This record gives sequence, C-alpha cells and structure tokens, in this order.
Amino acid sequence: MRLSRYFLPVLKENPAEAQIASHRLMLRAGMIKQASAGIYSWLPLGFKVLRKLENIVHEEQVRAGHIPMLMPTLQSADLWRESGRYDDYGEEMLRITDRHGRDMLYGPTNEELITDIFRSHVGSYKDLPLTLYHIQWKFRDEIRPRFGVMRGREFFMKDGYNFDLTKEDALHAYNRHLVSYLRTYERMGLQAIPMRADGGPIGGDYTHEFLVLAETGESEVFYDSEITDLRFGEREIDYNNVAQCQEILEEFTSRYARTDETHDEALFNEIPQERQRSARGIEVGQIFYFGTKYSEPMGATVQGKDGKPVPVHMGSHGIGVSRLVGAIIEASHDDKGIIWPEGVTPFHVGIVNLKQGDSEADAACEALYRSVEALGLEPLYDDRDERAGGKFASMDLIGLPWRITVGPRGLKNGVVELTCRRTGTSEELPPEQAVEKIAKIYHVHHGAGMVEPMAKRSFHTWM
Amino acid sequence: MRLSRYFLPVLKENPAEAQIASHRLMLRAGMIKQASAGIYSWLPLGFKVLRKLENIVHEEQVRAGHIPMLMPTLQSADLWRESGRYDDYGEEMLRITDRHGRDMLYGPTNEELITDIFRSHVGSYKDLPLTLYHIQWKFRDEIRPRFGVMRGREFFMKDGYNFDLTKEDALHAYNRHLVSYLRTYERMGLQAIPMRADGGPIGGDYTHEFLVLAETGESEVFYDSEITDLRFGEREIDYNNVAQCQEILEEFTSRYARTDETHDEALFNEIPQERQRSARGIEVGQIFYFGTKYSEPMGATVQGKDGKPVPVHMGSHGIGVSRLVGAIIEASHDDKGIIWPEGVTPFHVGIVNLKQGDSEADAACEALYRSVEALGLEPLYDDRDERAGGKFASMDLIGLPWRITVGPRGLKNGVVELTCRRTGTSEELPPEQAVEKIAKIYHVHHGAGMVEPMAKRSFHTWM
Repeated sequence: MRLSRYFLPVLKENPAEAQIASHRLMLRAGMIKQASAGIYSWLPLGFKVLRKLENIVHEEQVRAGHIPMLMPTLQSADLWRESGRYDDYGEEMLRITDRHGRDMLYGPTNEELITDIFRSHVGSYKDLPLTLYHIQWKFRDEIRPRFGVMRGREFFMKDGYNFDLTKEDALHAYNRHLVSYLRTYERMGLQAIPMRADGGPIGGDYTHEFLVLAETGESEVFYDSEITDLRFGEREIDYNNVAQCQEILEEFTSRYARTDETHDEALFNEIPQERQRSARGIEVGQIFYFGTKYSEPMGATVQGKDGKPVPVHMGSHGIGVSRLVGAIIEASHDDKGIIWPEGVTPFHVGIVNLKQGDSEADAACEALYRSVEALGLEPLYDDRDERAGGKFASMDLIGLPWRITVGPRGLKNGVVELTCRRTGTSEELPPEQAVEKIAKIYHVHHGAGMVEPMAKRSFHTWM
Repeated sequence: MRLSRYFLPVLKENPAEAQIASHRLMLRAGMIKQASAGIYSWLPLGFKVLRKLENIVHEEQVRAGHIPMLMPTLQSADLWRESGRYDDYGEEMLRITDRHGRDMLYGPTNEELITDIFRSHVGSYKDLPLTLYHIQWKFRDEIRPRFGVMRGREFFMKDGYNFDLTKEDALHAYNRHLVSYLRTYERMGLQAIPMRADGGPIGGDYTHEFLVLAETGESEVFYDSEITDLRFGEREIDYNNVAQCQEILEEFTSRYARTDETHDEALFNEIPQERQRSARGIEVGQIFYFGTKYSEPMGATVQGKDGKPVPVHMGSHGIGVSRLVGAIIEASHDDKGIIWPEGVTPFHVGIVNLKQGDSEADAACEALYRSVEALGLEPLYDDRDERAGGKFASMDLIGLPWRITVGPRGLKNGVVELTCRRTGTSEELPPEQAVEKIAKIYHVHHGAGMVEPMAKRSFHTWM
C-alpha cells in the first residue's frame, strides 16, 4: 500500500479521553474512531489487524476440529426465557422491541441460540462429539464503557460450544480448547496464562481465564513465576489424542495461577517465596465446562447407546477478538507508539523514502516495494512529500516491526537501512539483502508463499 | 471435510414455510436455520458460501483501489438527525434505547456515519479521491420478512462510499464501481444486468441497480435481449483509466434495461420487436451518485485548490452479500437441489464411497481425498455408512458441481466415476485422471495453488 493512497489519519495530539496506552495509541495511529460511547468504527489500519486476529482464531479452531458457522446478532427473548436468563441478565443486556412489539435482544453470548440449533437437528449419540463456533459482534450495555476497545459495548468475540455424550468427553473438549487457545495466543505474539477462574453468570464447574500480564490489566493476578517460562512452541498436536491434550493442560495449569476472584493465600504461600508473583492482567479468553446447565432446561438430549434420551454435556469457550487488539498493544508498545508482533502486524514492512521526488530514491523504493510484494508480503510505502522526521514518527507510531529507509546518500554507497522497531537497531545493507532478511523474518521462501511462524499454512483459507 | 465429522443437517421434507426455491433449498441443505422472523443462523455449509462471497467482494473492491474498514452495527440517532433522515426513515429503522435512555438505531445503511468519519479526518483536496467501504450486518425491520435470506431483516451487505472533489471525479468513481461489480458478479457465476433505477430514500441523480434474471424475482424488468450476450470476461482493467471505465459503462448500459419503476414504454418500443424482453429480476446491488446531498448538511468539506472550502461529491454503492446466496440458488438449481457455480461452491468436489467399510473402496477414497487436498482444494467425503441412494440425494441437494463415485466394481477395473452436477453426465476414468480433471476445472496447477477463473489470486488475502 502506498500511504498517499491510503486512509491513515494519524493524530499528533494525545486524545484527552484516553486513559490507557492502547486506547491512546489506537486513536493516534488512526486505527479506530469512536462512533458513540463504547462503540467504534475500525478505520482501515485497525480493521486490518482485527481481521488478522480473526483469521488466526479461525485457523486454530478449524485445526482443532471445530466447525465454523455464524449466528445472528439479534435474538428472540423467548429462548432466554426458556433458560431463565432473560430476567437474570440485568441491565447489561440490550433489550429491543421490534415494530410488531416483539421482545428481542442484542446477543451478549449465544448459549441459548446454539442449544436451540442443536436440539432441532441432532438426535443421536452417533452425531457426537460436536463443537460449533462463530465469530460475531456482540453487545453488552456497560454502564461506563472505557479503555477504548478493551471495555467497549459492541465487541467482536469468538464463542464456541461443545456438545458431548459424557462428562469425560466434554472434559476432553475443554482440554482441546485450552490447547488451541495456547497456540492461538502464541501466534499473536502474546503470552496468555490460563488461570483458575470463577464461573460467573455463565456458570461452570471447570473454568479457566486466559490473562495477558500488563500494568493496565483490570484483574489482580497471583502466580508462580515458573509459569512465565512455559512456551507452547512448535509441538505437533493431535487434537483427538485425549492423553496428549490432558498432559498439556496439566503442564500449563498445575502451577499456581489465579485471579483475585479465586485467589487462595494459603495455597499461594506454599510456593517458594522467590517464585511468588503478583501483577495485573487483561482477560483475553475464558473456557467453561458447565455440564447440563442449558441442555436440561432446554431439552437438548440425544438418544444414548441404550436408546434412552440423555441431556448432552456442554461447555462454552470465548476469545475476545476486538479486545485482543488492545491487549496486544498494552503488552507491546513504547513511548513512540505500538510495536506489532510479526504474526499480527497490519503491514509487514514500512518503506520510508527520505527524498520523495529524487528519481533514484523513488526508483529504489518502487523496486523494494515490488520485491516485498513478490514475496507475498505487504509493504507500506510512505511516498508522501514530507520531512523524514514526520515519516519516522508516523512509522514508529503505527508500529510496523521492520522499516527500510531509502535515501540518496545511502544509495550512493549501494545501501539502504533496515531498522527493527522493537530494538531500534539499524543496519546498512544492499536493497536485495534487506529484502532477503525480511523474507527470512517472515519465513517466506521465494515462490513458495508464506509460512507462518507457528505452523505451515495451507494455501486455501481456514474454511 | 469428512461428512461423519461435519454438521450438515439436511432435511428430507420440504419445509412448509418456504415459498421459493432458494429458501426451500437452503433450509433442506442445512445451510440456514431461522432464529426469529427474518433472522437466520448460518449453519456451517451456508456460512462457507457466505464467506466465499464476502471474500470475492473484498478482492474485487481492493483491486479497484477501494479501502476496507468496518463500521459498527449500532449507531447514534444524533447523526441521523443531522442529515434529516431519522424522522424520514419510517418503521423499517430499528430504533433502540440504551440503559442511559440514549436514542440509537441498528444501521440500515451508513451514509451518516461515514460522512462523520470523513469530516473528522479529511481536510484537503489533496487527500482525494477516497473510497472507503465495509461489509457489515445491517437491519431493516421489514413488516413481512419472507423468502428466507432474500428479504430478511438482519442481512449482510457491502456498502462503499466515494468522496471526490468534483462531480466529474465522482462520476469516475461511479463508473469504477459499475465495472468492479460486473467482475464481482461474473466471478460468482452470475449474470447481473445493470438497469437504470430510481433513487429511492438514499437519493441520487445517477443510479443503476444490478438484477439477476430469475422467475421468482421481485421486480418486473424490461430489456433488449442483446444485453444478455454481454460478458465481462478476462479483460485487463486499469481502474485509474477514466476512459476505459467509461467505455465499459457505456457497453453495459447503452442498451435498454429498466425495472418497472423507470420503465418507459415508448423507448422500449424503439427496440426491434424480436429483441424486446420482459422478465422478472432479483436486485443484488445498486450504485448511486448523489453529489452533495450528505456533505452539505453535515459539513463534509475540503479545502479546494483555491483555499476555499467545498462540499465533497459523494456516492454510495451496495452489494447484498447474504441476499446473493439466495439469488445464486434461484438462478442455478433443478428439481434435485442446488447447483453451485465453481467460483462459490462450498466444497470443490464430493467423494461418495458406495461401500463404506470395504477396505479397497475406503483406501481409494482416502487417497482421492488427500490428492484433492494436496491441490489446495476442499473435498467433501461422504464416509457415512449409508445407502448409495441416500448419499447421491444428499450430494445432489447440496449441489457440489463435481462428484467422484468410488465402488468395488469400478475399482476392479481401475476406475472411478466423475459426474458433473449441472449436466448429470458421468465418465469412468482412473482415480488419478479424475483428480487431474478436477485440477483443470479449478485452474489448479500442482504445487502452484489455485488460480481463480477470473483472475490470478495473489497468495496473501485481499487485505
């Protein structure tokens, strides 16, 4: 993309309404614009990141054997009366009356709707196990929306639901989700720690929240420092392998890690003191096993092996996709702006022309642009007629992990400058070597397409 | 995908509520389930098609130089009061009050919101031309929703908005949209004819609707039969080329083609009688140029070349993405079910095992499955232990364009059967030749990824 043809309205001033870094930086980098309280338009740069996160979530869910679908944003109140949650949910549920006077609501979650789909179409234990999920806009009418997309009212969330014959099978589904979530967050460049959590209004005997450590987190968390050394890495996963998923769950959840809601001081003090940590965390996902809580009142049964109807065992599993954009920025920024992890960056490399209009500099930038595109990567070329200082400030603000700087002086010596946003270090090298380095960083091989750091991507999409 | 692990709840009976083929077939093929009146859940098969259409729209919009973003579903009433449409819009607008008593609405379209974004961030003629678009769920509270996704209340639509300094520039944007829409529909296997239309509540001096001819269409249309011979085909387009876009507009709009709203009997009768046609059509898109209708009341001005503020010239351009799923089915089905065009089919080829459990048949199916996947294509393998008749009926119903049938008898002679859904013709050939034919049909070359019929796809996505 050439910046002169893009829509990237960066702000020079810090917006007064933003209290935390991610909110401030998303406004300043032209990623979002508030439409009304807690409701945002995603400007082109923000939408690109949101879509990348959505695609990673899809890819990892499909890899785990979960099936994508899409439920609507508006739901009928009747289903929520069946489960008993219509009256319980309180003022956070946005209630709507249509032109015929029917009670509706903007879905804050989808247990009722998915259970209705299940009971209408599935009749036998032979159709299980089944896990369906979707990624859709939701609404919670927060009394005081704040922190930008971190605590908005309209938000984008992945929610998945497993249906199993037995508690044992449902716990495997729970473990499968935990494993797939670990992979998902790590691909986004995040360390999200599964912590024992409280069921809350969804209910649930087994539940873990995934928390990203960040100073601005809304939760106080307590953990054994060993947990931050764990990495998911490149391991091969067979999601049908019950023992393997169980082992990974144990590896990542056996050490002490809890939010203040479930914190147990006595247990915490059993950890050697030098490993006791308390910090703040941002919740970016949660998994639940809740058994027959919805299937019983709503009559979601299957014919069991003995021919008798049994209510299915269910769980629900969420990832806050729009919130993750904020969480990644909270975890990865500095005074100058955002620092995108390579796996989610909106553009792979920035190209800065120090002397727009200089025929050699222009030609070198164009050649670099085409070389990066030929790798299947996306460059953002700042081709505006602006001063170098302003171009650098914009690139630092929007946080592309790599920048190539092209100027007449360097070109005389046959070199351009490749700069790492995270470390700030630069090296001078010939343009073709800069492109080769970029290819290596993103695991791209000439003519072979991109290889994601965590897993070989197949050509066709996650669907 | 293996059918035994998929969620494809096909119905044997015709649903009583469905009056037209697409509604009936989408319900029967397990593509959708009604959640409440005019609101649908997209089950896995339906969601796959919806997502394919969404991707085609994105690819063609980005190719035309338009910039993707995303506006929220809920909007503040205040903006609509500024444009004067809050009171005008009538009961189709779903009005909502939040917990603080603020007036909101579920966006039926986005002229106000995008104009607000524009006026907040764009100040100079140098930032033009600019075209922003998004694909988002919308709501119109139809008094009598019917025909499934064809006239639903919650629907998925692409809407794009151009901002230009002059009427001349805005008319080029109008032409660019017309051209990109022609490409878009043709990639979906549709012939959508641009017809002179009426501005309606959006307003507009220049407007064309795109109509797909189908018996169940809601509009009566009148046209010169020569128009149905026009094909967009493989032509190279430079979307910055004003003359080229204008020529294509003229090629596709100079012959008589109007809906009943703008029909002119006298003009129609000037066509030689043997070319006069009347038929029914489904509207799948519309483009508008409306000048300064929104920019003037809402103060969306830029500083012109002479330093004085001028209101920008705008247009809006929509494609009904969810409605298109129905329109494609209306245009392409038979008594047995849907017939997907290759460009939008949810799976590229079905594999039917005539004798599940027979070790040779099972092995041959598995090998075919892997070969098709290795091409970057998606097979749907009916691996259920069911009778051949039932498997064929399901495959015909869901409408995959190609089917490979594998049975012990054929395998003894070293052959499988390749069947074309549209023509019903079959041929026997060795499995590897069947895979090669599939590769050719979808323009796939071993190791080189898929080539779309209309245009070489770059590896990275439309973003």
